[in-house]
Amino acid sequence: MIARNILLLLLCSNVFLAAIATAPQTCPADASSGCGDNSSGEWEGEFFPGIPKIKYEGPSSKNPLSYKWYNADEEILGKKMKDWMRFSVAFWHTFRGTGSDPFGVQTKFWPWEDGTNSVAMAKRRMRANFEFLNKLGVDYWCFHDRDIAPDGKTLEESNANLDQVVALAKELQGKKIRPLWGTAQLFVHPRYMHGAATSSEVGVYAYAAAQVKKAIEVTHFLGGENYVFWGGREGYQTLLNTDMGREIDHLARFLQAAVAYKKKIGFNEEFKLNIECNHATLSGHSCHHELETARINGLLGNIDANTGDPQIGWDTDQFLTDIGEATMVMLSVVRNGGIAPGGFNFDAKLRRESTDVEDLFIAHISGMDTMARGLRNVAKLIEDGSLAELVRKRYQSFDTEIGAQIEAGKADFEILEKKAMEWGEPKVPSAKQELAEMIFQSAL
Amino acid sequence: MIARNILLLLLCSNVFLAAIATAPQTCPADASSGCGDNSSGEWEGEFFPGIPKIKYEGPSSKNPLSYKWYNADEEILGKKMKDWMRFSVAFWHTFRGTGSDPFGVQTKFWPWEDGTNSVAMAKRRMRANFEFLNKLGVDYWCFHDRDIAPDGKTLEESNANLDQVVALAKELQGKKIRPLWGTAQLFVHPRYMHGAATSSEVGVYAYAAAQVKKAIEVTHFLGGENYVFWGGREGYQTLLNTDMGREIDHLARFLQAAVAYKKKIGFNEEFKLNIECNHATLSGHSCHHELETARINGLLGNIDANTGDPQIGWDTDQFLTDIGEATMVMLSVVRNGGIAPGGFNFDAKLRRESTDVEDLFIAHISGMDTMARGLRNVAKLIEDGSLAELVRKRYQSFDTEIGAQIEAGKADFEILEKKAMEWGEPKVPSAKQELAEMIFQSAL
Amino acid sequence: MIARNILLLLLCSNVFLAAIATAPQTCPADASSGCGDNSSGEWEGEFFPGIPKIKYEGPSSKNPLSYKWYNADEEILGKKMKDWMRFSVAFWHTFRGTGSDPFGVQTKFWPWEDGTNSVAMAKRRMRANFEFLNKLGVDYWCFHDRDIAPDGKTLEESNANLDQVVALAKELQGKKIRPLWGTAQLFVHPRYMHGAATSSEVGVYAYAAAQVKKAIEVTHFLGGENYVFWGGREGYQTLLNTDMGREIDHLARFLQAAVAYKKKIGFNEEFKLNIECNHATLSGHSCHHELETARINGLLGNIDANTGDPQIGWDTDQFLTDIGEATMVMLSVVRNGGIAPGGFNFDAKLRRESTDVEDLFIAHISGMDTMARGLRNVAKLIEDGSLAELVRKRYQSFDTEIGAQIEAGKADFEILEKKAMEWGEPKVPSAKQELAEMIFQSAL
Amino acid sequence: MIARNILLLLLCSNVFLAAIATAPQTCPADASSGCGDNSSGEWEGEFFPGIPKIKYEGPSSKNPLSYKWYNADEEILGKKMKDWMRFSVAFWHTFRGTGSDPFGVQTKFWPWEDGTNSVAMAKRRMRANFEFLNKLGVDYWCFHDRDIAPDGKTLEESNANLDQVVALAKELQGKKIRPLWGTAQLFVHPRYMHGAATSSEVGVYAYAAAQVKKAIEVTHFLGGENYVFWGGREGYQTLLNTDMGREIDHLARFLQAAVAYKKKIGFNEEFKLNIECNHATLSGHSCHHELETARINGLLGNIDANTGDPQIGWDTDQFLTDIGEATMVMLSVVRNGGIAPGGFNFDAKLRRESTDVEDLFIAHISGMDTMARGLRNVAKLIEDGSLAELVRKRYQSFDTEIGAQIEAGKADFEILEKKAMEWGEPKVPSAKQELAEMIFQSAL
Repeated sequence: MIARNILLLLLCSNVFLAAIATAPQTCPADASSGCGDNSSGEWEGEFFPGIPKIKYEGPSSKNPLSYKWYNADEEILGKKMKDWMRFSVAFWHTFRGTGSDPFGVQTKFWPWEDGTNSVAMAKRRMRANFEFLNKLGVDYWCFHDRDIAPDGKTLEESNANLDQVVALAKELQGKKIRPLWGTAQLFVHPRYMHGAATSSEVGVYAYAAAQVKKAIEVTHFLGGENYVFWGGREGYQTLLNTDMGREIDHLARFLQAAVAYKKKIGFNEEFKLNIECNHATLSGHSCHHELETARINGLLGNIDANTGDPQIGWDTDQFLTDIGEATMVMLSVVRNGGIAPGGFNFDAKLRRESTDVEDLFIAHISGMDTMARGLRNVAKLIEDGSLAELVRKRYQSFDTEIGAQIEAGKADFEILEKKAMEWGEPKVPSAKQELAEMIFQSAL
Repeated sequence: MIARNILLLLLCSNVFLAAIATAPQTCPADASSGCGDNSSGEWEGEFFPGIPKIKYEGPSSKNPLSYKWYNADEEILGKKMKDWMRFSVAFWHTFRGTGSDPFGVQTKFWPWEDGTNSVAMAKRRMRANFEFLNKLGVDYWCFHDRDIAPDGKTLEESNANLDQVVALAKELQGKKIRPLWGTAQLFVHPRYMHGAATSSEVGVYAYAAAQVKKAIEVTHFLGGENYVFWGGREGYQTLLNTDMGREIDHLARFLQAAVAYKKKIGFNEEFKLNIECNHATLSGHSCHHELETARINGLLGNIDANTGDPQIGWDTDQFLTDIGEATMVMLSVVRNGGIAPGGFNFDAKLRRESTDVEDLFIAHISGMDTMARGLRNVAKLIEDGSLAELVRKRYQSFDTEIGAQIEAGKADFEILEKKAMEWGEPKVPSAKQELAEMIFQSAL
Repeated sequence: MIARNILLLLLCSNVFLAAIATAPQTCPADASSGCGDNSSGEWEGEFFPGIPKIKYEGPSSKNPLSYKWYNADEEILGKKMKDWMRFSVAFWHTFRGTGSDPFGVQTKFWPWEDGTNSVAMAKRRMRANFEFLNKLGVDYWCFHDRDIAPDGKTLEESNANLDQVVALAKELQGKKIRPLWGTAQLFVHPRYMHGAATSSEVGVYAYAAAQVKKAIEVTHFLGGENYVFWGGREGYQTLLNTDMGREIDHLARFLQAAVAYKKKIGFNEEFKLNIECNHATLSGHSCHHELETARINGLLGNIDANTGDPQIGWDTDQFLTDIGEATMVMLSVVRNGGIAPGGFNFDAKLRRESTDVEDLFIAHISGMDTMARGLRNVAKLIEDGSLAELVRKRYQSFDTEIGAQIEAGKADFEILEKKAMEWGEPKVPSAKQELAEMIFQSAL
Repeated sequence: MIARNILLLLLCSNVFLAAIATAPQTCPADASSGCGDNSSGEWEGEFFPGIPKIKYEGPSSKNPLSYKWYNADEEILGKKMKDWMRFSVAFWHTFRGTGSDPFGVQTKFWPWEDGTNSVAMAKRRMRANFEFLNKLGVDYWCFHDRDIAPDGKTLEESNANLDQVVALAKELQGKKIRPLWGTAQLFVHPRYMHGAATSSEVGVYAYAAAQVKKAIEVTHFLGGENYVFWGGREGYQTLLNTDMGREIDHLARFLQAAVAYKKKIGFNEEFKLNIECNHATLSGHSCHHELETARINGLLGNIDANTGDPQIGWDTDQFLTDIGEATMVMLSVVRNGGIAPGGFNFDAKLRRESTDVEDLFIAHISGMDTMARGLRNVAKLIEDGSLAELVRKRYQSFDTEIGAQIEAGKADFEILEKKAMEWGEPKVPSAKQELAEMIFQSAL
C-alpha cells in the first residue's frame, strides 16, 4: 500500500530563505559532549504541564489558550474546517528555533532541552512535538532530516541517527498524525556553502543526492503526504565567480534523478508549488498573487503560512494575523477546492523576545484562528455573491459569439481588424475597484 | 525580399513600465487645432544648427560633443564596435518626451515643435529624428506607432496618418538606417485603461489586434529588424475585480494570432527576450542576472539600455553611466557572440530639468561612450584571462568521469549515494569572491 | 477676530510626492481657448443628480451609498465621531484628478467639465465641490491655490483669478464649512522644476515667496484652520550638480520669512507635522510609527489619510480600507486627545480605471467608514484594557525608586554600575508579542 | 595627558545592524571548557606565514597581495594618503567573524583558533590582530568590549577578563597603533534582547550603563581617538507592546549620563555622526547623501566603509569595490578637509564562502585600493575644475544684491513679492545633469 504522494517544488530566489535555527546542529568534535549516545535520559511527565488541550470557545472568549474562530469539525462551505486547512507544525521553528539571530545568541531555554545535540535529546524533543500536536489538535507536522536527528561523523552514522528518531516518530504518530511533508536540510552544514545540487564541488553534489535519497525514504516510511525540495543555498553570491549555465544544468539533472528514484520505489510522481507568503512579498508580489497564479495553472500544492514585516527586507517568518490577507489566501484555497494532499504548514516562528513556553501555543492558536477567520469571511463573501457578480459582469463582453471565437483560438488578426473597424471606438466602463474593496471589507 | 525578423517578447511585471511621454498624443476634439492636416508647414534648415557630426576624439578630449570611447569602426575582439553595439535611438523619449511627470507639466520646448499634434508636425519631427541619427552616427531607431503619427478620429484615419509618416521615414532612411524594431502603443489611449490583449472588453481586444497588425506591417515595410511586444497595461490593479485566468488565456490567444499573421505575410518567426536594465533592478534582479539568464537559455534578443536611480522605486529610464555595470552588460553580449539582429535601444530619457537641445546629444554620447568603455574593459578582462581561469578552476571537480556521468544524466541516486559514502566528507574550497572582484575592478 | 491657526510643516523626502493631476493647469498661449474669461457659462441643476445625501445605515446595510460605520454625531470615547475625525476632501484629487499617469492620458470625463481651464470653469467646479461636501456630510476641504483657479499670464492676473474663485468659495462655505488647510502649488509649473525655495534661480525663490504670501492670505480669508507647507520639488535629482548647503540655507530663510509674515498679519504661529501614511511606508516606516513619533514629541498636527500598494514603489494615494491599519492610526489619534485644529485630509484618489461619478462617493464613503471602524475598534481595545495592561506591566521595573531616579536624570554611571554589580544578572521576561497581536486582532 | 576624544553617535534605525559574529561569545556553563583560564597556550611563530608586508606596486601589478592605488605616504591634494584615509580594521568582522548566518553554521576555521572562548585564546587572537595590522600597514583598529575578551560569570569577572586583554593590546600597540574607536557590545547577550538603554527592564539599563562606563575607560586607556555609541537592539519589534515615549526618554537619560561621565574623567566631549554606507542604502539614501548631509551640518565624524548588495534587503557589509561610489565618498571627505579624529573603519567582512586566510588580506587591500582610487579621482576632478564650475554657475543668480539679502535673512515676503512682480516670469536654465555625469565619469 503506497501513499499517494506528490513532489512539491518550492521555488525561491537565491536570497530569500525560510528561517532555520542554526544553533549547534552539528555534533561537536569532542565526543565527551555525549552527541550520538543516549545520555540525555528520559523526561518525566508532561512537557507542557500548564497547558490544556486547546478547545474552541468562540469569538467572545478572552482565554488566550482557546480557539475563537477555528472549530475543527465545523462544516463551512461543505467541508470541515480541518479539511480545508490541514494545519501542520514546522518542527524546525517550533522545536529547533533558539532565538539566535545575526546579532545575538540563543534566548529560548525550553525546560526539556539539556544543551546537547544527542540522539537521546532528539527523541525527547520528538515526544514534546507530539504532545504539542495533540494539545493543539493538529494532525500534520513537517521536518528536515537534520532537525529531528543529529548529524553523525559519517553519512552512515547520520542515517543511523535518523532511523532511530524516525522509528520513535512512527510509533508516536499513531493512526491520525503524519507528516504533511519531509525534506532534506541542505544548507546548515558548511559543506553546502556553495549550494547542494549547484555546488561547484562534485563531492557535495553526490552527498546531497545521498541525503535526499534517505529523506525521501524516511518521509515515505512515516506516511508523509508530500516531499518538498527547497534550495536554500542554490544560486550564487556573485556572478563573477559563477558558471550559471553549468549550475542550472546540474540542478536539472539532480531533479531528474530524484524523480527517477521516486518512481523506482513506487511513488507516483507529480510536481506542484509550495507557496510561501513571506517569500512572495520579498519578491515584490502579494501572497494572493502567487496563490492565484499557481491555482489557475493547476499548480497550487501547499502553503507555507507565514508573513513578513512590511518594513523589513528579509523573511521574518511571523504568524499571520492580518484578517484581510487571510481572507484572500482562503479565497484561493476555496476556489481550488482545497489543497489536499497539501496543507498549511506554519513556517513561522516566535519573535526572538517571546520566551515563555505558552508563547508557542499562543502563536499557533493565533495563526490558526486567523486562517479560520479568513475562511469564515470567504463563506460570507460567497453567500453575499456581489463580488463574484461584479467580476462576472466585467468580462461579459466575452460571453458572446466573437468572445467564444477568440477563446477558442479561431479569431485571427484579419477577422479582428474587420470587427474593430465595424465597431468603432469601444466603450470602456469603470473597473469599480473602490466598490470591490468596499464589498470585500464588509465581509471582514 | 523578406527581412529576417524575429519577434521579441518583452516580459514585464504589471507595475514597471518604460516611460512614455503622455502629453497630448490624442487629437483634440476641436478640429480647429489643426490635428490631422498639414498646417504646420515646412521647417527651414537644420534642426540642430550648432551641433556638428559627433566624432571620436579619444579619452583625453574635453569636448562634450565628441566620443571618448566609442569609435564605431574600430575592431575590438574581432568585431567593429558598431557591430557589437547596434545602437538605436528611441523615438518616444527623444522626440516625444516633454518632461511632464505626475506632478508637473512639460518643461521641454524644442524649437521645431509647433504645439500641435498634426501629421505635418509628425513629419517635421521625423526629419529632426534623421538629422539626429546622422549627427550621432547611429543606424537604428525604435518607435511605437502612435509616437510617430497622430491618432485619427477612426482606426482607418489613424492608419492613414501612419502611412503618410512611414512613407516619409522610408524615404529618409536611405540605405543605411532602419528600425531596430517597431511596436504598437497600447497604453496611452483611455481605451486601453484595462489592458489591451487582457482588457475586460472584447472591443478593446479587437482594436488592439488591428493596431498590432498594422504596426507589424509598417515595421516590415521599413525593413525593421524586429518587432517587439510590450504589455504596458496588461496585468491588474487589484485581484478583487479581476479574472486572471481568463485574462491570461486571452493574452495567449492574442500572441498566437500575432504569430499566425507573421507567418502569413512571410516572416520567420522566433521569440526572444528584450531585457530592460531598469526593469531588472525594479524586479529585484541585477541587469547582469537577467542578461545571463536569457543568454544561457538562448533567449537574449535585445537590450533596452537604461538604468534607474537605486533610491527610487519606479523606472527613471536614465542613460547608464556606471562603468562596472556597463562592463558586466558587455560581458554577456560578448559571451553571446553579439546580439544581432537585436541591439542596444536607448530606452532612456533626459532628466526633466535638462532642457537644452544639446542635452539630447550629451546624454546619448554619454550612454554610448559608457557601453563602449564597457566593451573595452571586457577586452582587457579576456586578454588578462585570470577571471575566466578562476571560474574554470572552481568547477573542475566536474571535469571528471563522475562529473561527466552526472552531466549526461547517467548518475542516479544509488550511484551517487555509493560515491558519497566512499568519498567521506567533501572538501570545499574558498569561493574567492573578493579576489574575483579585485580582478574585475582592475579591468575598469 | 482672528482664527487660531497653526502652520503645519509636511516633511517629505525628495522622491515621494503626493499625487497631483498634471493635466493642463496652465493657461494655453492661445487666448481663443477661453482661459481666464467666463465663457464656460452656468451649470444648470445638480452636479450629482442620482446621488442622495449619504446617511448612516449601520454595518448590515448593503447600500454602497450609505455609511456602515461612520455616524457623525454618535459619541465614542467622549467625543462625536465627526470631532475625532474632522474629515476633509482634497480638491486636487477629487476635482482636478484626470486619471492621467506617466503612460496614459485622461480617463475621467466628468459631465460638468467643459474642457477649458477658465475662471468660469473653476467656479463651476467649486460649486460641484460644495455639493459634494454637503452630500457626504463633510465640513472641511483642502486646496492648493492653482487647483482652484487658473494661472494667469502674470502673477497679478493669477492673483486676480484666485480672488474671484475664493470669493465664490467664501459665499458657498456658509457658516459650517471651511478649509482644513490651504497651500501653494509650487511644483506643476515648469518654473519650479529646480525647486521653489531651493531653486537655483533667485527669481523663482521670489516668485514662490509671492505665491505663498497670497496663499496664506486667501486661506486666512476663508477661515482656514491651518496652512501647510509641502516641498514637492525641493531636494535634488543628483548631488553632482547641487549645492546642498546653499539650498538648505535658502529653505530655512524662506520658512523664517513665512513665519514673520504670519505674525505680521495676526496669526499665531506654531509648527506641527502633517503625516502622510503613504509617504511613511515609502520611507520604510509604518504609518503608526510616524504618528507615534510625532505624538510623543507633541508634533502630531494633521493626517493625510491614504495608503499605498505594498508592491509598488511610488505613492499610489489610495483610500485606506485596511481595518488593522485604521485601528492603529486611530489609536494614535485617541491617545493624542484628537488632532484639532488638524484633521484627516483624504489625500487619496480614485484608481485610473474608476470612471463613474458615483465612484467618487464610494471611495470617500469607504475611506471614512474604514477610519470610523478603526475608532470603534479602539474603543473596544480601551474598554477591554488588556493590551494597555500588558504594556504597563512590561515597564513596571521602572516604577521603582531607581527607575524614578533614572527618569529624573539623577542616576549617573557610578550609581548604575554599583546597582548592576549588586543585582547580578538581570531577569528578562518574554515580550509577549504574539499575545499582544492576538489581543489587538480580537478588537477588529 | 588626555587624548582629544570625540563622542561619535551612530544613528541607525531599529532594523539595520552592522553584522557581528554571534558564534559562542558567551562562556559555556561547563567550566571544563577552559573559558576564562589560560589553557589555550602560546602560539608559535607567525600567524600569517605566507603573507608578506603589503607594498605599493602600482596599477599595473598583477599581484593580489600588493596595493595598486594606495600609497600610504604619497601626497594627494596636500595631504598624505594615509592621513586622508586613517584606515581601521574592525576586530569583530576580521577576527570574530565565523561565517555563520541564519541558515548555516561556521565556515571559517582559522588555524590560530582553538575552539574555545578563553582569555588565553583572546590574547592569542589579539596577537594575530597586530600582525595583521602591521602587515597591512594600517594604524587603527576598532573593537567592541566583548569581541576582544570573553564574558565572565559576573560583571566583575567580565571586567577582569577585559583588563587582561586590554593590557596586552596596550603593549602590542607600541607607539604607532591605536584604536580609531572602541564601543560596548550591547546586543549579543540575551539580557539585551529588549534593548540596552531602552530595555523594559531597569536591571538591564543599569547593566548597560556599567558596561559602557568600562568600555569608555578602556578605550581611553588604549589612547582611542573616539568612542562610538551603537544602538543595535534599541527600538522595537512591534509598537503594540511598546511604550515608545518612555523608551526614548530612557535613551536620552542614558546619553546624558555618558556625557557627564566623560567630562568627569577628563574627556572633551563632542558628538558627531558615524555614517555607515550600507545603512544609508538600506534606509533609502545614498551613502553620498548621508555624508553630505552630515558634512554641511558640521557633523561628519567617521565612516563605516562598507557596501551592500543592491538586490538584498539587509546589511551584507561587503568591502566597497565600486569606483564611482568611492569617488563620491572621497569627494565629501576632501570637502570636509579630512575627517580626523575619525577615519575609515572597515565595517566589512569576507563573504561566507571565502575561507582562505589570504582572503582576509585580499579583501582589505581591495577595499583600501578602492578608496585610494576614489581619492585619486577626486584630485583629477578638482584639477579639471569643470564640475565645480558647473555647480557655481547654477547658483550665480544668488551672487547678487537680492541674493545676499535673502541669504542674510533680510528679504521678507513683501520685498520678494514686489521683486517677483517687477521681474515677471523667471528664466530657468537646464540643470545639465547628463553633462555633470559625463564630467564625473571622465575622472574615473
